[in-house]
Amino acid sequence: MPVGSDSPPIATRSAGTFSLAELVGDLGGELIGAADAVMTRIGPLDSADAQTLSFLAHPKYRRQLELTRAGCVILSPDAASGLEGRCGIVTPNPYLYFALATQWWARRIRPSHSAGIHPTAFIAPGALVAPSATVYAFSCVEAGAVIGDGAAVGPYAHVGEGARVGEGTRIGSHVTLGYGCTVGRFGLIHAGVVIGADGFGFAPTGGADSRWEKIEQLGAVRIGDHVEIGANTCIDRGALDDTVIEEGVKLDNLIQIGHNVHIGAHTAMAGCAGVAGSARIGAHCTVGGGAIVLGHLTVADHVHISAASVVMRSITKPGQYSGVFPLDDNVSWEKNAATLRQLHGLRSRLMAIEKKLN
Amino acid sequence: MPVGSDSPPIATRSAGTFSLAELVGDLGGELIGAADAVMTRIGPLDSADAQTLSFLAHPKYRRQLELTRAGCVILSPDAASGLEGRCGIVTPNPYLYFALATQWWARRIRPSHSAGIHPTAFIAPGALVAPSATVYAFSCVEAGAVIGDGAAVGPYAHVGEGARVGEGTRIGSHVTLGYGCTVGRFGLIHAGVVIGADGFGFAPTGGADSRWEKIEQLGAVRIGDHVEIGANTCIDRGALDDTVIEEGVKLDNLIQIGHNVHIGAHTAMAGCAGVAGSARIGAHCTVGGGAIVLGHLTVADHVHISAASVVMRSITKPGQYSGVFPLDDNVSWEKNAATLRQLHGLRSRLMAIEKKLN
Amino acid sequence: MPVGSDSPPIATRSAGTFSLAELVGDLGGELIGAADAVMTRIGPLDSADAQTLSFLAHPKYRRQLELTRAGCVILSPDAASGLEGRCGIVTPNPYLYFALATQWWARRIRPSHSAGIHPTAFIAPGALVAPSATVYAFSCVEAGAVIGDGAAVGPYAHVGEGARVGEGTRIGSHVTLGYGCTVGRFGLIHAGVVIGADGFGFAPTGGADSRWEKIEQLGAVRIGDHVEIGANTCIDRGALDDTVIEEGVKLDNLIQIGHNVHIGAHTAMAGCAGVAGSARIGAHCTVGGGAIVLGHLTVADHVHISAASVVMRSITKPGQYSGVFPLDDNVSWEKNAATLRQLHGLRSRLMAIEKKLN
Repeated sequence: MPVGSDSPPIATRSAGTFSLAELVGDLGGELIGAADAVMTRIGPLDSADAQTLSFLAHPKYRRQLELTRAGCVILSPDAASGLEGRCGIVTPNPYLYFALATQWWARRIRPSHSAGIHPTAFIAPGALVAPSATVYAFSCVEAGAVIGDGAAVGPYAHVGEGARVGEGTRIGSHVTLGYGCTVGRFGLIHAGVVIGADGFGFAPTGGADSRWEKIEQLGAVRIGDHVEIGANTCIDRGALDDTVIEEGVKLDNLIQIGHNVHIGAHTAMAGCAGVAGSARIGAHCTVGGGAIVLGHLTVADHVHISAASVVMRSITKPGQYSGVFPLDDNVSWEKNAATLRQLHGLRSRLMAIEKKLN
Repeated sequence: MPVGSDSPPIATRSAGTFSLAELVGDLGGELIGAADAVMTRIGPLDSADAQTLSFLAHPKYRRQLELTRAGCVILSPDAASGLEGRCGIVTPNPYLYFALATQWWARRIRPSHSAGIHPTAFIAPGALVAPSATVYAFSCVEAGAVIGDGAAVGPYAHVGEGARVGEGTRIGSHVTLGYGCTVGRFGLIHAGVVIGADGFGFAPTGGADSRWEKIEQLGAVRIGDHVEIGANTCIDRGALDDTVIEEGVKLDNLIQIGHNVHIGAHTAMAGCAGVAGSARIGAHCTVGGGAIVLGHLTVADHVHISAASVVMRSITKPGQYSGVFPLDDNVSWEKNAATLRQLHGLRSRLMAIEKKLN
Repeated sequence: MPVGSDSPPIATRSAGTFSLAELVGDLGGELIGAADAVMTRIGPLDSADAQTLSFLAHPKYRRQLELTRAGCVILSPDAASGLEGRCGIVTPNPYLYFALATQWWARRIRPSHSAGIHPTAFIAPGALVAPSATVYAFSCVEAGAVIGDGAAVGPYAHVGEGARVGEGTRIGSHVTLGYGCTVGRFGLIHAGVVIGADGFGFAPTGGADSRWEKIEQLGAVRIGDHVEIGANTCIDRGALDDTVIEEGVKLDNLIQIGHNVHIGAHTAMAGCAGVAGSARIGAHCTVGGGAIVLGHLTVADHVHISAASVVMRSITKPGQYSGVFPLDDNVSWEKNAATLRQLHGLRSRLMAIEKKLN
């Protein structure tokens, strides 16, 4: 059994403390109260104690401020009067400050992994692994693949022939990065993600007894910088050209991205969403959980699709779009659903009455 | 190449026989007919033969009893008269008896795996593996992790730093159990499950060109005893506090559980369901396949959500809830769906007519 | 660290050229223009250059033919007049010809992997691997398993006890093929697929405090020849009898197939679809992305289910079926969805008016 130092690509938390002065010294903001107050944790207002740094995202939740026992609260200038003697960090965008504080805290409490290749890993001849990169237990980097500076390849990750992992990008456990596919810099690919499986492409042979003839998928997947991809999400390689995920895109877990899809920069999609082949989604969009975008459609920039909605036509104007059957008790639903199947007929009957009355 | 004894965590079936007397001796029930009748298989009524033990779940399926060739049928007292000379096991809850019989049978026909660590596995210094536990080929247990008595860690499973696997719990192949996450006793985690990937949390930097700033996910996942989790399901770690799955919960395949979700005891969810962040689902609920529960909602105990329905508001009363567009032939659907987009207007027109007529 | 030759089961593309004469010599079709014209790529009409072989799937896209710079276009006889001096390959079914051309091209440009077992793989005693098969890095073949002629077992694939992989079938990375399950010949199983996890079967113990008693899943999964299964898709083993996928079936990514489902030959299902337990889907069907088929239903041959639709009753007649809430801007959707919850009541009011007027 091989023995060696081993830590996960996403390193563990551990105990630690910080003073408010240290935090504000690094991240800015106006500190109200004792600079030497010591915090042990970042937490929500309702479960906070005197050593917890918390945050008030919106002034409308101000009521929570009265009730919390948090040692310090990050809040906006117009909520600062509610501190009433508590410590606070005043900043124009408390939620953003909170995000940066979690990053600052994580860097302090998580042990930094040391660069190097685990003795159980397999690096094929002709693969290029930067000396500052970390390759974890049982991972496999194939010929022609390149692992960039400071990147991490998680346990059981398979980096295919000629694939590229950019600087600082962390690849989780059991990830498949298919041959010839590329991931940009400072990305985070969670466990079980499959990048570069074949797109779903077949030509029918025709007739009543038609079979499916495979269309070999000759493209790859190209992923930009600062992209995060959630666990077990799949991004297929293109049929002829490449599938493209632009910079700053955030994908949640169990999402399906079909071949030749193009997702614009800084778009975010929640879990279980699916985008069918050749759809083109704009930049700065959001797609809710379980939503489906059909193939070959175009969705404009700044479009927001509600959870579980189905996009069946292209969307050319920014805005929020929805299409979900409202939940009801089962008996009411059955009645309304049955009537819905007659809806077009009801409309005709209504029109007949209108005609009669006019 | 390493060589060693190796059997899967979920062991294989093999040929075997049992007498009805043995079964009833262990599980109880009233045996009608020959106690020494030998069975080779448990099977459904319609494909049963004279060596098959079958079951009649409800007296309403009694017709099937007339047609079956099963050697013995598990049934309730009020259906027992339908046996007409066949062997039977009479019990108040035949379906539950059947479940217990499958467990009894599986214990007999599946080879028990022997405890120990496969030579290809990697156990990091500082990991604790109980001597009665089994660690399969190529699995990896990190520093500070604990594998309990009689537990099994499947091939390619990755047990992160400080994670804990309770007594008797079996972990399938390619499972990721993230650092600091815990699974209780007598659980079953199927292949490809990811527990403890980052929750989906980002703060927008603001403005038309807004980017997403990562909120580091500082919580973990805590899973109770007797929990079963289906293949490729994902349960994210909490943002600040933990994601919690209580005892006896059963999750099917390809389910997404967001960060800080709380699922109450003995709730069952079918495949492809999704629960968004911070939702709180009660105990003894059922959630149908493909259903979606939006974030930050509360669902009471004993609530049943139909398949493919979307929960958009909290549910405070027990009961069955549904919300699905009824399937129709495509032409009818197109007409009704188009009219649905005018529905609110139709209601106004109906009200105008009512006003005119009254 | 072990060192050895290693190439992925789905091999990489590389540079290459072909002449039209070579292609037509192998695949047939009527060549119009210079037989010695050399192509470097197969690509879509809109991004084609003078070395690109492209195709016109339908004469209705003929306009694209005028604009393309493709060196050669595959097209049907009635579109051939649009070539206007360009090279073309005339064939009755251009899309099918294109599919065969991608296969022909992929065979030329992708390096053939050499047979043999990677030094990091683990083959249990009693496993049978054909000498012409390829077993990749870190894969594991258990006792009693059989890997057929020319088959490939990808990195980290786990082939369980007694499982069988047919001739020429390629298994991707991180695949789990459960004990006793079988895959036919010339199949393609993509990364992360789980075949043979337990079906979701539990008997309630009864009462308000009901728990779930596991029904051991005693069946297996049987998959026919020429089946393709997309990344991270799950196919559960049967409860008592087997789950069956017939020949020529094509499943996309992230699909859930429940226990004892039967899918007929040459049926294709798009990503994120789900089929609940014991459903029986006919041959030559198509199921759109995100669609759900409830359990214990029967769907006839040649049925086509639209994306995101839910099949709640058996379908006995061929045809296209749909059931999706139409997408709308959020304000309109809210109004119409709220009114939908009163729909049955509106119908009654309409009927009352009709009665009054007649």
